[in-house]
Amino acid sequence: MDGLTKIDDLGQPRVVIVGGGFGGLALAQSLANVPVQVVLIDKHNYHAFQPLLYQVATAGLAADNIVAPFRKALGKQKNFYFRLAEVQSIDATAQVVETTIGLLRYDYLVLATGATSNFFGDAVMEQNAVTLKSVSDALELRNTLLANFEQALQLGDREQLNSLLDFVIVGGGPTGVEMAGALSELRAHVFPQDYRELDLKQMDIHLVQSGPVLLKGMSAKASAQSLADLKAMGVEVWLDAKVKSYDGYTATLSTGQKLITRTLIWAAGVTGAPVAGLDPASMGPGKRYFVDEHNRVAGYENVFALGDIALMKTTAHPDGHPQVAQPALQQGRLLGRNIARLLGGELMQPFHYDDKGSMATIGRNRAVADVKFFGHEFHLSGLLAWLAWSLVHVLALVNYRSRIAVAFTWAWNYWSRDKGLRYIIGRIKPLLGGSVDTPAGKAIV
Amino acid sequence: MDGLTKIDDLGQPRVVIVGGGFGGLALAQSLANVPVQVVLIDKHNYHAFQPLLYQVATAGLAADNIVAPFRKALGKQKNFYFRLAEVQSIDATAQVVETTIGLLRYDYLVLATGATSNFFGDAVMEQNAVTLKSVSDALELRNTLLANFEQALQLGDREQLNSLLDFVIVGGGPTGVEMAGALSELRAHVFPQDYRELDLKQMDIHLVQSGPVLLKGMSAKASAQSLADLKAMGVEVWLDAKVKSYDGYTATLSTGQKLITRTLIWAAGVTGAPVAGLDPASMGPGKRYFVDEHNRVAGYENVFALGDIALMKTTAHPDGHPQVAQPALQQGRLLGRNIARLLGGELMQPFHYDDKGSMATIGRNRAVADVKFFGHEFHLSGLLAWLAWSLVHVLALVNYRSRIAVAFTWAWNYWSRDKGLRYIIGRIKPLLGGSVDTPAGKAIV
Repeated sequence: MDGLTKIDDLGQPRVVIVGGGFGGLALAQSLANVPVQVVLIDKHNYHAFQPLLYQVATAGLAADNIVAPFRKALGKQKNFYFRLAEVQSIDATAQVVETTIGLLRYDYLVLATGATSNFFGDAVMEQNAVTLKSVSDALELRNTLLANFEQALQLGDREQLNSLLDFVIVGGGPTGVEMAGALSELRAHVFPQDYRELDLKQMDIHLVQSGPVLLKGMSAKASAQSLADLKAMGVEVWLDAKVKSYDGYTATLSTGQKLITRTLIWAAGVTGAPVAGLDPASMGPGKRYFVDEHNRVAGYENVFALGDIALMKTTAHPDGHPQVAQPALQQGRLLGRNIARLLGGELMQPFHYDDKGSMATIGRNRAVADVKFFGHEFHLSGLLAWLAWSLVHVLALVNYRSRIAVAFTWAWNYWSRDKGLRYIIGRIKPLLGGSVDTPAGKAIV
Repeated sequence: MDGLTKIDDLGQPRVVIVGGGFGGLALAQSLANVPVQVVLIDKHNYHAFQPLLYQVATAGLAADNIVAPFRKALGKQKNFYFRLAEVQSIDATAQVVETTIGLLRYDYLVLATGATSNFFGDAVMEQNAVTLKSVSDALELRNTLLANFEQALQLGDREQLNSLLDFVIVGGGPTGVEMAGALSELRAHVFPQDYRELDLKQMDIHLVQSGPVLLKGMSAKASAQSLADLKAMGVEVWLDAKVKSYDGYTATLSTGQKLITRTLIWAAGVTGAPVAGLDPASMGPGKRYFVDEHNRVAGYENVFALGDIALMKTTAHPDGHPQVAQPALQQGRLLGRNIARLLGGELMQPFHYDDKGSMATIGRNRAVADVKFFGHEFHLSGLLAWLAWSLVHVLALVNYRSRIAVAFTWAWNYWSRDKGLRYIIGRIKPLLGGSVDTPAGKAIV
């Protein structure tokens, strides 16, 4: 589409932010009282709280509770403009981005496009696996999961049945561990009543991790505890194993083991989601832009990158910061102040990552946390870690309404041991690996 | 699909219920302690509370809060079986229904398939109008509504702009009146902040009613008050007018008036949704099955019909009962007891409709209610009617969780004058009546 985007010209410097994840949203908020026009472009009209997508997928939380429409979150900010569009390319010489709704001029461009699932070039795997990067992914996985069980009711053949009831999760990071735990809770507390007719001992949950430990990057204590917790909850953990291939029905591990499943959840690493048009020399490993300590993209004066898509090499983090919420949030907040400093003729301040630690939840009263506090690191597990995890995640949500709603839902689910949002609305991913045979011969009418 | 549905044979009489709306759900619950096997078949795995769909469509309520998965609502009921399927035909001689998952034998068959939008044979209208009969409809309308406004930001041409910002609602019953009121509230309280760049005086809401009054069937006082309220809220009400044609862009009224809109909401009457296979003589006007005072379909011993799909002619209701929740609920409850009586060799009890009155909400503190109480009828309006409407609808929800969630959301929305769920997830209905031109010439980059 040619033409120009229709947007007010305020006669102020225009900061165009591409992507409203943790970094982009924090930056937009940080620019609230700076004399610039803030234009946020995103392909969705809402910010999604990615760390809780697995709970949406497992019927524990409503999608509504973890999204915040940008126009609501930032609606009171007078210099804020939002456009629902995708950015297709950047022309840094003309200082223009090309979008699906036309061209848009910028004075400062900030790329906060985040990361996307990395299938390392395996197109067959990419086509057959499900991912957990967006709200639509989470809802589609919820629908698939529930539809599998509805379809399983009609099956007699043991292998066909297992293909629907068994789940393979690839990747032993927080998402993989939390997903495995949540599926195990459904198996223990929810499905036995919902699917009385099925033998739930047939439902296997496999977690495949390429390295020797789960939650790589957390403490050895956290890794060991998460493994012990998952095993206690009946999750089959495959360490030092990779999924070599998956055709929608059979997952073959590097160990030679074959797992039959129609639902393989890919949580095994991400790659940057760059925008076309910048100098290829600005792009580093993992498709992340090389940025300096001010998040400025290498080779550009007025183009910045934040969060997952930015590769800032520091002494403490020679391979860049972890691709999680905290670095993005902190970089977004600092960049807002730095743009104000730039406009005021002051020097920008360098970024220093304040690592507050990390945590993962596994199930009811089960979590692990490495908390950094005044230079000391504490390792929590069990109920205390679980409460800490819950509190941190509730407080991190974007608005009060979400916080109240999520806290209420968690309290309700905890008390009732229930996950009540198990309805199928909208698209069900078609059954992979061929259709399910009807069990005419074995049926009892 | 041939073959038989795989389901336990309990050696008890099997009651197959087709459709889990108000009537089907009430019947299933009513059979909890009756020595029968209850099999509920529905194309969704949840009960949807239809009277609040318009609030889902206007971002006031989450879909999650007005649906109840059948397996959760009835999971503790030992004789309850659910199958996610559609019934394709009935073979009353063999006592079998053909479904998308195979054949299913029944001893008693209860049709509770409800009603669907009636376009009176106008295929062009049907293709271009949006309806509000399902949760998917409501979410799609919400997406369309919000996407319209996002797209409108790029438009300069006045007619194109109005085609996106204007809404035409056809039908002045409760759904039409409530929808018009909810859109008016978005215009007054939510969109002015979200869409500062648009002139919201351009947003027109038209309500087209074929007869001389709104809320036909309610008291004259309620009709007059709802008209006055809607006018006060800036809704343009067209009485004694019909939409003769709609091509996705231009709606032509019977008065000759033309209204430009890409969003025409059809709330103008329903028709039964029967199942193939029964004797055509059993089918009455409006595609409703003739039933006797025990909801037994004319000409059949063990086939019943409930609610919207049933036409029970009585002295008080010579044209059948109104197609709303209460008759369906009451018939469902009674039929459960009557089936128990049949099995016990007792006589069935005839149905007597207990009309508790009717109500409709228009906006903040604005509602009308005709309440029947010990033979007296009271007419309420304003704040009192609005509180009564809210209380009745919260209590009518299927489970405690929904009641708490809806009450909390309404209290929050009331206090904040906000409707916070304005995100676009999933399918956006493509723009009707051709694409929107980009305003290249008029754009300011």
